[in-house]
Amino acid sequence: MGGLELGAKKTGVSRGVAVMDFILRLVAIIATLASAIAMGTTNQSLSFFTQFIRFRAKYSDLPTFTFFVVANSIASAYLILSLALSIFHIMKSGAQKSRAMLALLSAGASAAAAIVYLAHKGNTRTNWFAICQQFNSFCERTSASLIGSFGGMIVLILLILMSATSLSRP
Amino acid sequence: MGGLELGAKKTGVSRGVAVMDFILRLVAIIATLASAIAMGTTNQSLSFFTQFIRFRAKYSDLPTFTFFVVANSIASAYLILSLALSIFHIMKSGAQKSRAMLALLSAGASAAAAIVYLAHKGNTRTNWFAICQQFNSFCERTSASLIGSFGGMIVLILLILMSATSLSRP
Repeated sequence: MGGLELGAKKTGVSRGVAVMDFILRLVAIIATLASAIAMGTTNQSLSFFTQFIRFRAKYSDLPTFTFFVVANSIASAYLILSLALSIFHIMKSGAQKSRAMLALLSAGASAAAAIVYLAHKGNTRTNWFAICQQFNSFCERTSASLIGSFGGMIVLILLILMSATSLSRP
Repeated sequence: MGGLELGAKKTGVSRGVAVMDFILRLVAIIATLASAIAMGTTNQSLSFFTQFIRFRAKYSDLPTFTFFVVANSIASAYLILSLALSIFHIMKSGAQKSRAMLALLSAGASAAAAIVYLAHKGNTRTNWFAICQQFNSFCERTSASLIGSFGGMIVLILLILMSATSLSRP
């Protein structure tokens, strides 16, 4: 909508916006992909620490983390696809789908954040103890992974805001 | 954008869309407000059950549930405001803000869902035990509250889709 007029008066400003969009998309891909991989490869064995229980913490022990990995993978896959398509100028902005991705990412990241918070602090009322004293590497990794995902969300918000302003500018 | 032309050829179809929009907004308000209130008033005392620990489960014992109440309150406040404004025809669609609300609601609902899942099923690896055997009313209430929130999300998605199709129709 309005693509023809936009194409006709393609000034330096809109070219700058396009370059910025490209860079932001790259950053979002790296952030979401890195956090999916970081979470997906989290695996800590604790047999040396407590001899009586061979404890092993893996991301898939907590279903929430599995959802987190899936959500981040879908978001990064979408971003890679949208980047590839935007290089070949096949589709224009895809702000609609970016928003769906934002909702998905925020769902995954928030659910994982709730669990990571519990792992760090525990909860005395429900007798859920903090597990980060034992599983420090597990906790560090999942926390770092969260940062990547929330970073990806911020970049997506920037992308959506940018596409909104470029749409409202006739 | 295109508001004048739309206003000029206001047919029965667009009137139907407006009525539908109004009803959906009402449903979303009821859903989000009800789930905020249901969660916010959750409070279960268990002194009769286990004599040695005077146990009391309240929504504010879990920070995630506090976030859930805040997210739902903000979403319902926005929806009430948007409904009031749309009655007096002050602003048009507000699809942009609806999407921000969707991201916020999905964050709150997912984080709460992660905790409610844990309360129901527990997690043997991390020694977090299911608490729903003891706190059955607490669990029922928080679960019901989640349903309201996810219902509100679905209605918001419908609203956004409706506004997207009415925008693309010139």
